[in-house]
Amino acid sequence: MKETTIYVLERPELRDPVFIEGLPGIGLVGKLAAEHLIQELNAVKFAELYSPHFMHQVLIKKGSVVELMKNEFYYWKNPDENGRDVIIITGDQQVAPTDSPGHYEVVGKMLDFVSKFGVREIITMGGYQVPELQGEPRVLAAVTHEDLVGRYQEKLKDCQVEVIWREDEGGAIVGAAGLLLGMGKLRSMYGISLLGESLGYIVDAKSAKSVLLAVTKVLGLEIDMTALEERARETEEILRKVQEMQRAMLEQQMPPSTQEEEDRGYL
Amino acid sequence: MKETTIYVLERPELRDPVFIEGLPGIGLVGKLAAEHLIQELNAVKFAELYSPHFMHQVLIKKGSVVELMKNEFYYWKNPDENGRDVIIITGDQQVAPTDSPGHYEVVGKMLDFVSKFGVREIITMGGYQVPELQGEPRVLAAVTHEDLVGRYQEKLKDCQVEVIWREDEGGAIVGAAGLLLGMGKLRSMYGISLLGESLGYIVDAKSAKSVLLAVTKVLGLEIDMTALEERARETEEILRKVQEMQRAMLEQQMPPSTQEEEDRGYL
Amino acid sequence: MKETTIYVLERPELRDPVFIEGLPGIGLVGKLAAEHLIQELNAVKFAELYSPHFMHQVLIKKGSVVELMKNEFYYWKNPDENGRDVIIITGDQQVAPTDSPGHYEVVGKMLDFVSKFGVREIITMGGYQVPELQGEPRVLAAVTHEDLVGRYQEKLKDCQVEVIWREDEGGAIVGAAGLLLGMGKLRSMYGISLLGESLGYIVDAKSAKSVLLAVTKVLGLEIDMTALEERARETEEILRKVQEMQRAMLEQQMPPSTQEEEDRGYL
Amino acid sequence: MKETTIYVLERPELRDPVFIEGLPGIGLVGKLAAEHLIQELNAVKFAELYSPHFMHQVLIKKGSVVELMKNEFYYWKNPDENGRDVIIITGDQQVAPTDSPGHYEVVGKMLDFVSKFGVREIITMGGYQVPELQGEPRVLAAVTHEDLVGRYQEKLKDCQVEVIWREDEGGAIVGAAGLLLGMGKLRSMYGISLLGESLGYIVDAKSAKSVLLAVTKVLGLEIDMTALEERARETEEILRKVQEMQRAMLEQQMPPSTQEEEDRGYL
Repeated sequence: MKETTIYVLERPELRDPVFIEGLPGIGLVGKLAAEHLIQELNAVKFAELYSPHFMHQVLIKKGSVVELMKNEFYYWKNPDENGRDVIIITGDQQVAPTDSPGHYEVVGKMLDFVSKFGVREIITMGGYQVPELQGEPRVLAAVTHEDLVGRYQEKLKDCQVEVIWREDEGGAIVGAAGLLLGMGKLRSMYGISLLGESLGYIVDAKSAKSVLLAVTKVLGLEIDMTALEERARETEEILRKVQEMQRAMLEQQMPPSTQEEEDRGYL
Repeated sequence: MKETTIYVLERPELRDPVFIEGLPGIGLVGKLAAEHLIQELNAVKFAELYSPHFMHQVLIKKGSVVELMKNEFYYWKNPDENGRDVIIITGDQQVAPTDSPGHYEVVGKMLDFVSKFGVREIITMGGYQVPELQGEPRVLAAVTHEDLVGRYQEKLKDCQVEVIWREDEGGAIVGAAGLLLGMGKLRSMYGISLLGESLGYIVDAKSAKSVLLAVTKVLGLEIDMTALEERARETEEILRKVQEMQRAMLEQQMPPSTQEEEDRGYL
Repeated sequence: MKETTIYVLERPELRDPVFIEGLPGIGLVGKLAAEHLIQELNAVKFAELYSPHFMHQVLIKKGSVVELMKNEFYYWKNPDENGRDVIIITGDQQVAPTDSPGHYEVVGKMLDFVSKFGVREIITMGGYQVPELQGEPRVLAAVTHEDLVGRYQEKLKDCQVEVIWREDEGGAIVGAAGLLLGMGKLRSMYGISLLGESLGYIVDAKSAKSVLLAVTKVLGLEIDMTALEERARETEEILRKVQEMQRAMLEQQMPPSTQEEEDRGYL
Repeated sequence: MKETTIYVLERPELRDPVFIEGLPGIGLVGKLAAEHLIQELNAVKFAELYSPHFMHQVLIKKGSVVELMKNEFYYWKNPDENGRDVIIITGDQQVAPTDSPGHYEVVGKMLDFVSKFGVREIITMGGYQVPELQGEPRVLAAVTHEDLVGRYQEKLKDCQVEVIWREDEGGAIVGAAGLLLGMGKLRSMYGISLLGESLGYIVDAKSAKSVLLAVTKVLGLEIDMTALEERARETEEILRKVQEMQRAMLEQQMPPSTQEEEDRGYL
């Protein structure tokens, strides 16, 4: 595998679809939000993205089955005749923080792919790390073009969560949540980044809920949030088990450094 | 050398060959197992794989001869007319853990190559690091497709070693032992990973023996294990000598960092 | 985005243009100097350079708008009929110090691009870190060809700042300020590097002023320096705010290492 | 510059030339030996090798002139009608130890290039780090093919320096000194590595002398060694000056990490 490759399972006809990203990041906020959205909308997987820039390993899944690290595209057809369809991407991981060209390659491939389905608007979801939280996590917003602020503000009116427009000039949005907007802009796409405040080191269902409240408001949809905290608890459970396993291993002396480890926990 | 290259010494005709991987990793389990299998089956080397993603050095071999870092393919023709032939890969090293694209490239080339000989089934061997061992090392199994569990269980019936089906969802198999299965699956290949429990920081003949008991059971073969511990002792001896040499060197002040070292011990 | 790409906004006709580089580096000297020059000359942006070797993030700009990391080309048309025009490059960042091939690619693309506008001469600006300063920062000069020393000395006669010709054989000029000259030389271009002494860890308006005094002398121009210190103060203010934000975050426990951070401060 | 490139200044006709490598490494042994050989033979530079895998900087040379990092090819025509000509490579640096693919690329280009001049035999020179020295540094030898040991032993008979045939199986030769032989072997070239014992952290003229005694014996040449120690002293002087400069700088607080340093000492 020389470069990032997308395996297409189905080629749906979509109506002016909005592309929504929720990949692993701070507090797993984006990933949790995307998975919940997929579940509640009953969205259908239609493509898988593999990349030599992902970790060189397979993950153990249910039934002792192994699978290559991947990202997954889902679509949802809006039953409302005048509504827009949705494409959602989530997955096992993002490219490593030390591999910038890998990030650009993967995000470029994502944009190539979704533009074939007519995507013009992108919403990216994720966490924004803060030292402390006061009340419900707020959502920080930034857009690709200045005139969008008003348009999105209109849609976010009466949103149950406080949405803050970012004024931290010189601040950054790292990874797919940022690059999809930045690189999309160069292709005449537009969109918004919605990041939920998070302490960052937990599986943050509350932050994901805030983000989803804003995203669904933008989309003009309503979804049930009750299963979200349960999902977060399960994710946390898995992470804790894996980390305990890793800690036990690390207490042993390390193997010689030129040996490649065949098996080690993930996350 | 711009990319991973395979030098073919011979082009054998093989009958539905099973591809078996045993490269350096935890406890050198996979490499030891592969070398023992090659020795006992009298398998024949027929190809060498070189890669710019391997360490930029040559190794000193017998007779003061130098050789580039490499992996090697061996074949074994099953004397049983109804039996299947075997391809085994082992070698000096795997790509460095920090170079994911290198891993994907090398494993992709391996799969390109063996598929020319009709390979559909892959068995990967290696170690699985555990903090402590109780009795003989067990073997952990995972497969490419859910319906294979039953099929392999059938073959592993009455195996002299305990085989555990992995249930550590979210766990991983890192390196060639994982990627061969994950990437092979994308090419309609199938197979099993058999990892022996190991404390990880020794040359682990016991773990290699456990893995070989399971692998030969799957293959329907029997091989003599007596030489295995001797081989492990020799390997350990070489490693100790090299490490002593390195320690002696490191006690000296380090050379200026922009100087490339012409000579340093391996492993 | 597979490689460094330049988006051209306008294709000006330029008269024997001098190419001037001022990208982020020690004390932000080069970037400050370039931005001041652009402001005072009322230079016009005509191209943007994007690279997969830049950090995989977007920056927050005014109005909650995000933009990909980039470098920018400006041109200035000399109103003097016998004068030469100018192309200036500045930007958000340079390629990371650990990515040498990225540096060579980006600088190669810059040279490809400006050579289309007839550039033969290059002036690179930056800082030169010193442990202490005595009086006004001096400017250190080095050239692509030995016979240029005399030619530039002639132009720099009566310069208000002391220009030192470098004699530190074995010393280096790292990054675009060096590579533009070194790689330009291989394409029959020529030029000079002018680096202002700087303590290096501040936004160094004084050093930028020294460099600009030398550069404008070489160009035969005069510009007003009064706004320079104000600009430096503003830059410092932004940097301080971002760094405080970062410090607050870092005091929290770090998130799991395989999670990509969606949001972190820049600089 | 996308890949390693060789600029050819002259295309000499050479008679069965031996290719001799002496690039920076342990104790600068190989580089010192190569430079002395070039000087004493009055060898002529005929090509320069540039690579995006070299450090992204220019070096300051005499007369305040900057030059890109490079390696250089020299040739020497043997006045003896029956003698063989020589190609020597030396240079500013080797690819960084963390960039294996870069090493393979650069060495591959070297071999492509010298094979056009009919090179079949390669001699690589360098240092071999030892914790302590007893008497004159010995030279460690290894070859590409087993049957060469006898042939070179014959040539090395009566050599003034002790040549040891390496028996440290599993040991390695890192960098160009190793790769040229390993990769050359795959192209039907052959040769020998001659490494002088060295404490490694000085500019080691004694070790270089030992290596040159062996190399000239193999070549059937004699050269004057008197200037070698003087050359080593000069090199050491330059290194010390640069290092002092660096130490002074490092005592200052470090600049923000995302700033690329424009100027820092070399070595």
